[in-house]
Amino acid sequence: MTTASAPGKIILFGEHAVVSGATALGGAIDLRASITVQDSPGSVVITTDDLVLKGFSLDLLSGRLSSPQAAYATRYISAVVSELDARDVSIEIKSSLPVSAGLGSSASIIVAAVMAISEHQGQSLSKEEIAAISYRLEKKVQDGLASPTDTALATFGGYLQISREISALDLPMLDLVVGYTGVAHNTKSEVEKVQRLKERYPDLVEPIFKAMGAISERAAPLIREKNTSELGGLMNINHGLLEAIGASSKELETLVYAARGAGGAAGAKLTGAGGGGCMIALPGPAGQETLMTAIRQAGGYPFSVKSGQEGVRLEKEP
Amino acid sequence: MTTASAPGKIILFGEHAVVSGATALGGAIDLRASITVQDSPGSVVITTDDLVLKGFSLDLLSGRLSSPQAAYATRYISAVVSELDARDVSIEIKSSLPVSAGLGSSASIIVAAVMAISEHQGQSLSKEEIAAISYRLEKKVQDGLASPTDTALATFGGYLQISREISALDLPMLDLVVGYTGVAHNTKSEVEKVQRLKERYPDLVEPIFKAMGAISERAAPLIREKNTSELGGLMNINHGLLEAIGASSKELETLVYAARGAGGAAGAKLTGAGGGGCMIALPGPAGQETLMTAIRQAGGYPFSVKSGQEGVRLEKEP
Repeated sequence: MTTASAPGKIILFGEHAVVSGATALGGAIDLRASITVQDSPGSVVITTDDLVLKGFSLDLLSGRLSSPQAAYATRYISAVVSELDARDVSIEIKSSLPVSAGLGSSASIIVAAVMAISEHQGQSLSKEEIAAISYRLEKKVQDGLASPTDTALATFGGYLQISREISALDLPMLDLVVGYTGVAHNTKSEVEKVQRLKERYPDLVEPIFKAMGAISERAAPLIREKNTSELGGLMNINHGLLEAIGASSKELETLVYAARGAGGAAGAKLTGAGGGGCMIALPGPAGQETLMTAIRQAGGYPFSVKSGQEGVRLEKEP
Repeated sequence: MTTASAPGKIILFGEHAVVSGATALGGAIDLRASITVQDSPGSVVITTDDLVLKGFSLDLLSGRLSSPQAAYATRYISAVVSELDARDVSIEIKSSLPVSAGLGSSASIIVAAVMAISEHQGQSLSKEEIAAISYRLEKKVQDGLASPTDTALATFGGYLQISREISALDLPMLDLVVGYTGVAHNTKSEVEKVQRLKERYPDLVEPIFKAMGAISERAAPLIREKNTSELGGLMNINHGLLEAIGASSKELETLVYAARGAGGAAGAKLTGAGGGGCMIALPGPAGQETLMTAIRQAGGYPFSVKSGQEGVRLEKEP
């Protein structure tokens, strides 16, 4: 039996802008997907029974955990099975990441599967190999649309600065609250919508992307100093810029303003492609519990995360 | 008896950016303040009994029509009385403009008073003189903070493009819906907050202001063509940029998203300094009633306005 786990991710700054070459900053979080591979002679079995969202009661999420989600995860695993020519194994998926929420659930499932299956086959792939294979597979399953950021963060963990190339940043952990709107989003359609806006109004959208990139570049030293008040201010600016290019939604605005208001957040923004999915908030002096309560009362599903977590790893057998 | 009335205003595009020299576009609206002057030997009497908000039921606004509002209007009238050395007159103020809402209520009261009192004294001031005196008085009452835009729009009406200088634009009327949050705002503190942000992050805020100015400059031909779908798109972008610099609020976001969602608006944005006050929305194919209903259901006070209205004028006696 071989188990590997890989982290989800949040984009702290610069989503959408990065598509046009501006800098973004992402971090791996402590919500993980784990894949367990066991011998199972004569067949390949994929089980997804445990694909639940850790920390949520099931009644809150009824209807969101049914077969479409299992099918979703299974598509990615099937691609890995085919790529690595896996035979005679049962593969069990567990994930504490909501799907289609902008937290990189698919990348973490693929990355964990590539490591677990290859290790079970007795071959040790380097992290560079795992990241490259995983990116290629995610892109294939998603019809050409995938960012190398998600698979890189799931593989290497920590923080990554992404512009024309991806580079690791050595920064401390940051306590954040993620607020899930409960609304699935569609990364592809959101990215295409923003890119169409940019084609129509390059004189408006290009300076917006440039300002987003400048925010990302200011952020690293502030994370190093744990300067939450400045980081929060930059999150607020970044959120407005995302709103300007049409990436927000009523539900996201509701959670963002609940976080900044009653939640006492130092700052809050949507994270990922937007249009649904999640927002992130940096707790202010009132603390994390106050922030989570405010998000819950505004109709969101809050969970506390730490960014800057370890990448893909083999898990000891229990 | 002499009566003059002057219109309120909305900023269509470019508020805040205009403070730093970028272009803004404003329009006079068909909510007006009117001032009636009558002989009243031996004293100067100012009455404000009728300072109510046309179209609102009083119960909705209880607490917002009490003496602070009368005192507010009276301060401006007192400045005009003093400037024009008015004696032996009673001055009655009527206004359909909510105060401290970003709709230029103080400017319209001053401008109408300057015209009504001077005409009553038998002197005919030119519009240029009225605008100049009114701007100076508003600035004085507001401790140095006043934009010449409000008094110019109240005087000349129509549409004005404001950058380093103010120029009139000949454009058709536009049907809009204004949504009042019911939250008074403080122009001075909002403007100062944004200017502080600009000093702190010039590399972020200057491109935002520049994009706002570019939006204002694109708008005039679209108003001429009544291209509401493009105008609405630009309103949405402008709103996000205002959100980025901290000018929005929970209440404004709620009305903006209600307008864009259930209201079917072609676009929606906050108007004026923000932090409270009003938003404006451009009706979409679903029409103005749908839009007003959505704003009302979201907790706002909607009223329909037409922009591009006549400036200060003498009213015939009834």
